[in-house]
Amino acid sequence: MEVVFIGSGNVATQLGLAFKAKGIIIKQVYSKSTSNAEILAKKLDADYISEIEDLYMDADFYFYALKDSVLRSTLKKIDMPTGIQVHTGGSISISEFEGLTSRFGVFYPLQTFSVNRAIDFKNIPICIEASNVDVQERLLSLAELISDRTYQMNSENRRKLHLAAVFACNFTNYMYDISSKLLAESGISFDIMHPLILETAEKIKSLTPFQAQTGPAVRLDEKTISKHLALLSKDSESKEIYKLLTKSINKRHKLNP
Amino acid sequence: MEVVFIGSGNVATQLGLAFKAKGIIIKQVYSKSTSNAEILAKKLDADYISEIEDLYMDADFYFYALKDSVLRSTLKKIDMPTGIQVHTGGSISISEFEGLTSRFGVFYPLQTFSVNRAIDFKNIPICIEASNVDVQERLLSLAELISDRTYQMNSENRRKLHLAAVFACNFTNYMYDISSKLLAESGISFDIMHPLILETAEKIKSLTPFQAQTGPAVRLDEKTISKHLALLSKDSESKEIYKLLTKSINKRHKLNP
Repeated sequence: MEVVFIGSGNVATQLGLAFKAKGIIIKQVYSKSTSNAEILAKKLDADYISEIEDLYMDADFYFYALKDSVLRSTLKKIDMPTGIQVHTGGSISISEFEGLTSRFGVFYPLQTFSVNRAIDFKNIPICIEASNVDVQERLLSLAELISDRTYQMNSENRRKLHLAAVFACNFTNYMYDISSKLLAESGISFDIMHPLILETAEKIKSLTPFQAQTGPAVRLDEKTISKHLALLSKDSESKEIYKLLTKSINKRHKLNP
Repeated sequence: MEVVFIGSGNVATQLGLAFKAKGIIIKQVYSKSTSNAEILAKKLDADYISEIEDLYMDADFYFYALKDSVLRSTLKKIDMPTGIQVHTGGSISISEFEGLTSRFGVFYPLQTFSVNRAIDFKNIPICIEASNVDVQERLLSLAELISDRTYQMNSENRRKLHLAAVFACNFTNYMYDISSKLLAESGISFDIMHPLILETAEKIKSLTPFQAQTGPAVRLDEKTISKHLALLSKDSESKEIYKLLTKSINKRHKLNP
């Protein structure tokens, strides 16, 4: 089985490594940046190109790990190979491939990927969508090679899932970032926060997030809230975030006592 | 060793259970709600009272697990016992006890507590502050009975720590809550999000939150952001949060490339 990656970022890197670990041949990596293509190609024992005209034409799967606008412009330039064309985008519709080929799909792993952090795919949900039953079976088999949790999901639900993931992951991580910034100002190491962060994440396996909510906003502790706002007086951005989230938590729990 | 709890909420419950497990006698639980006092007293094999005049006077430690404003009004009514007086508040100064007694302190466990979720204190940071060296040693010994991570921290740093914890825990949990609400609208079970949430929490042990940031906001993926905003068109509150956090992440990463 041969795969080509179009894109060389976090998703291409981690998915490529997962495929390679299962014996799948990564034939080629394309990136418009030659050095990025080369870095990933080395990790995957693949060839690399930075001109889309040099695309290898005989692979079984072509994985596009590109942001939305770049996917569109890249597809326009491609002389379409016969292999299955797949993108990995949470918010990108399967219809991007329509009219270009008949064998296409989506392979969306619900996870946060960074280039320098290895990932075990075993437990990662992979959401599959396909242009026909044959492609669907082939994508499912591929997904099941690396993960025990595969789902069939249409573009509409996948987009909603991706939005939900932005809150649960990207915005959550940004809360960690603000927290770490605040601690740094007092010379306190962010390590002290790890047990709390882990428990917050573990807790919602046995309670709903609504039940798990704690803190001054939910218990209407106005004195504490004023102290916090005073501490944030020099950081107008974090202060605005604090106020908006506190108001919103408060409202949600008053409406649902 | 005898302890009295003033308050019967999440912190009193979990701290009381941790002490009890180490053989410490919980002598009495006070709450202005008789039924709340009784519920916790039963768990801790303690007596319970709802009139502060009935306070047991010979305990070694009095733990106040109350919100800020309630602590103040409760202290006003108490005929001060000779035992050590301690509050558990992150944002409450040690000075609340000044003028009332000479043996007082703070015992702040940095964790999120819910009544119905058992907690292992072993790894929980406990921040101690005390009115004198003798009280400090006694509070440290007590903290070390249940936790391997004790810290001495003054009221100013503790308040900053508490603020940082609101972001890392309470606001993070609220991101989970919004995420779960969005999935429910599409009939998708929140379980699908657990691996992503755990990885987001684990990731910041090896990367800084700044390095760990992923998602449309940090990669300036405007097409995806517009799709998300369109999906949120009927939920003005979540939309406002999405916009503010996206703008802020974007700015932070443009300022620190």
